[in-house]
Amino acid sequence: MPRPDTLPAWQQLMAHREVVGAGRVPSSHWTPGEPGWLQVAAGPLHADLSRHRIDPRGLELLVELAEQAGVRTRLARMLRGDIVNPTEGRAALHTALRGEGPLQVDGGDLRAGIDTGIAAQARMAEAIRSGEWRLASGEAVRHVVNLGIGGSDLGPALALEALAAQADGPACHCVADLDARALHAVLAACDPAATLFVVCSKTFGTLETLANAGRARAWLRVAGLPEAQLHRHFAGVTAAPDRAAQWGVPAAQCLHFGEWVGGRYSLWSAVSLVLQVACGPQVLQGLHAGARAIDTHFAEAPAHANLPLLMGLLGVWYRNFMGAQTHAVLPYAAPLRQLPAYLQQLEMESLGKSVDLDGNAVDWDTGGVIFGAAGSHAQHAFMQLLHQGTLLLPSDIILFDDTTADEPALNANALAQAQVLAEGGRVAAAPGEHGVLPGGQPVSLIQAATLDAETLGALLACYEHKVFTQACVWHINPFDQWGVELGKQVARELQR
Amino acid sequence: MPRPDTLPAWQQLMAHREVVGAGRVPSSHWTPGEPGWLQVAAGPLHADLSRHRIDPRGLELLVELAEQAGVRTRLARMLRGDIVNPTEGRAALHTALRGEGPLQVDGGDLRAGIDTGIAAQARMAEAIRSGEWRLASGEAVRHVVNLGIGGSDLGPALALEALAAQADGPACHCVADLDARALHAVLAACDPAATLFVVCSKTFGTLETLANAGRARAWLRVAGLPEAQLHRHFAGVTAAPDRAAQWGVPAAQCLHFGEWVGGRYSLWSAVSLVLQVACGPQVLQGLHAGARAIDTHFAEAPAHANLPLLMGLLGVWYRNFMGAQTHAVLPYAAPLRQLPAYLQQLEMESLGKSVDLDGNAVDWDTGGVIFGAAGSHAQHAFMQLLHQGTLLLPSDIILFDDTTADEPALNANALAQAQVLAEGGRVAAAPGEHGVLPGGQPVSLIQAATLDAETLGALLACYEHKVFTQACVWHINPFDQWGVELGKQVARELQR
Repeated sequence: MPRPDTLPAWQQLMAHREVVGAGRVPSSHWTPGEPGWLQVAAGPLHADLSRHRIDPRGLELLVELAEQAGVRTRLARMLRGDIVNPTEGRAALHTALRGEGPLQVDGGDLRAGIDTGIAAQARMAEAIRSGEWRLASGEAVRHVVNLGIGGSDLGPALALEALAAQADGPACHCVADLDARALHAVLAACDPAATLFVVCSKTFGTLETLANAGRARAWLRVAGLPEAQLHRHFAGVTAAPDRAAQWGVPAAQCLHFGEWVGGRYSLWSAVSLVLQVACGPQVLQGLHAGARAIDTHFAEAPAHANLPLLMGLLGVWYRNFMGAQTHAVLPYAAPLRQLPAYLQQLEMESLGKSVDLDGNAVDWDTGGVIFGAAGSHAQHAFMQLLHQGTLLLPSDIILFDDTTADEPALNANALAQAQVLAEGGRVAAAPGEHGVLPGGQPVSLIQAATLDAETLGALLACYEHKVFTQACVWHINPFDQWGVELGKQVARELQR
Repeated sequence: MPRPDTLPAWQQLMAHREVVGAGRVPSSHWTPGEPGWLQVAAGPLHADLSRHRIDPRGLELLVELAEQAGVRTRLARMLRGDIVNPTEGRAALHTALRGEGPLQVDGGDLRAGIDTGIAAQARMAEAIRSGEWRLASGEAVRHVVNLGIGGSDLGPALALEALAAQADGPACHCVADLDARALHAVLAACDPAATLFVVCSKTFGTLETLANAGRARAWLRVAGLPEAQLHRHFAGVTAAPDRAAQWGVPAAQCLHFGEWVGGRYSLWSAVSLVLQVACGPQVLQGLHAGARAIDTHFAEAPAHANLPLLMGLLGVWYRNFMGAQTHAVLPYAAPLRQLPAYLQQLEMESLGKSVDLDGNAVDWDTGGVIFGAAGSHAQHAFMQLLHQGTLLLPSDIILFDDTTADEPALNANALAQAQVLAEGGRVAAAPGEHGVLPGGQPVSLIQAATLDAETLGALLACYEHKVFTQACVWHINPFDQWGVELGKQVARELQR
């Protein structure tokens, strides 16, 4: 695959942007498509993409760009287990974790191993939930604290809060920060005799996670629990079970995941243990089913009706042709307030690259900044800048039909923001030009019937494939993260 | 004051950026000052600003820009209570709330009224803390839920978590979201008979806050508390006490603040009630003393040693001359994890404007996007993009000396990130160019001895004056927010 700026569609888009106008442009200068265009269904999601600053010709060129960049070819390679992460020599098989049917990789069927892992996780979750898992003092588990950071924290933390309505198991928490105050704030509400720690670390060598695991062990000791039985308070989720055993998590209390699962995709692996403990076995089936529906959609839907593909292409359009450096995510659902932080990792860690797949420095912009907040909060915090600032700032507004029964104003506000961002208007009470909202801000409205495991899985998979699409166009590897290693190394040197 | 692009220093900076180079530039292309330069002390804070892409000549020009833009004149006008918010016809006197000594405004002394308010707040906080305040069933207050949104939520929520170590009063929570699930998640841990709600709303007409107050009242009713005594479960903090009384908060249970306190500055007003209930009277004295030290510093320190002024000027430099649209805030202290959200409102709502003080459309960039996370989390989430992405992305790394006693790796990581962002380096394990970190990312290191009320107050005031500096240069009003009004109006229409 060639660099994007040599592709014919890229060059045509460069010319086409002169037609549409780059940067923040008032809505009166828009030339969008027909009313009702760009309505896209994907699994349990419906997206209204009509409020984008793209005309039919621009969309055509973006779709051609995806073809010329080989998005479909690269997807096929990813799905069949090729080494799509060449700098680490690894496949990226998070889709397999939520998939079905046989998957031949390196001459063996991966499915059996995945199914075995899922079964082991289900057994462990059930043992914890049922009270079969006994702690040092003989008590059952009433509190679970997930210790992990990055992907081993953001996914479980998001899902636990998003699906709290389904929780019927032990009280589950997540702690990531190296600062001990984070752990102690959570432990203040836990009973040592009834608390299990799930240590999630791919390498079982993550500084922050092992520091917290050590503190957890000290806390159990101070509580007077018998030393010989302390190991009963720890489960491990790792790709390095030997190191877990060395630390003190017995092999029988460890779940494994493969090297081919990237940290920011690890919610699809045994890193979801804490979620399953909180919500029971159905929750993973729902999460996986939702994601699988989007995997199929992304692989099969035609380009003009392919939600993740269009999200990715619009991201490229604003980033490379319109000058946007940022993108806001605004869920109108309090339980999704951590979604922006999750997507921040997914997108910024994947796309924050400036060397392409051929090892050459890129001459084009790559990943931008993702930020956001629950919509209610955002309206009263930073939305002013989207409405009246000078930046072109695309956003995703996410809403659920069933919140209206309880509070009709929630979705009314979501829809009103979309309208005002795109169309602008005037505030009568403000003097002169100070009341003018120019509009012209692009918005995707992403809608589902209800917030459940299936819609959450679908949403996350949509963004994963959006990121994949952008990586394909930008000709970069979205699965490595070498930039984070040097800081760790320098920190160790500074401590010497 | 004239528009910035006509100022001589602006035009000289435009030429000077050709010397330094705009956008992301590797650290080897830097031309910074002498080692040890730009070390700034401000109240309890110390800042190391040596890792900025500015040379001595550029700094000189920025300081001249501040003079030519009249930052000092505008500050003097703000401090003495002039109408510095002309579109709303209001003064902006948050500095007076934390100030000392007489303040003549409109022929009267404001100080007496402020002192009376502070005393009333102290009495109310003490009544709640001591058990003197009795709820409907005769019980004392054991839980307090602050209901507010935007400034009436972000400040109290941040301060409650930041200063949790000092909390010795009732358990205090904050709820803002219009989605009822946010409130019910908090109420699940509260006893209705022992729960007081603090309704914070400047207008006492905020949709989200009144919806939650209504739900709170319904929850108390369902718990069977006597209807005639339900009002005892509500305190009000407002500039519209009549409307509070109409809703059902008796005048004696209301604290007031003036129209001249903007929402995003309201932590300095009675909106801090919930913090004082949690932590006692000393906490406000510390918060105010820290902010006051910075107010004095900002008004008096010479430009080259003036922290908020330099932060604001560097913000202008990166935004208008270097092409940066974003700025990251990275506290290496778990209790400050909500600081980025607080600053997001402060900066984006204040500076998201495209009409200048003369009512003309701006021809220059104004406010950018603020985002961030606790440093530990950020390293494992989005820092990859700062290290290896294509964006110029300045950041503030905030750290506290005393965390090292407990966990030396925390500050070692903070310092390592600063070094690697600025200087770059190479990851040996990565193939070829994929291991190169180009460096060249600007970083402010902001340090204090410990995280307490005083340092928190100083930090927040620093950012307030940073924002003020940028607003002065950009010739915009940082105290209004007309852009947020239209969405509310359209939402009401959509519900009809």
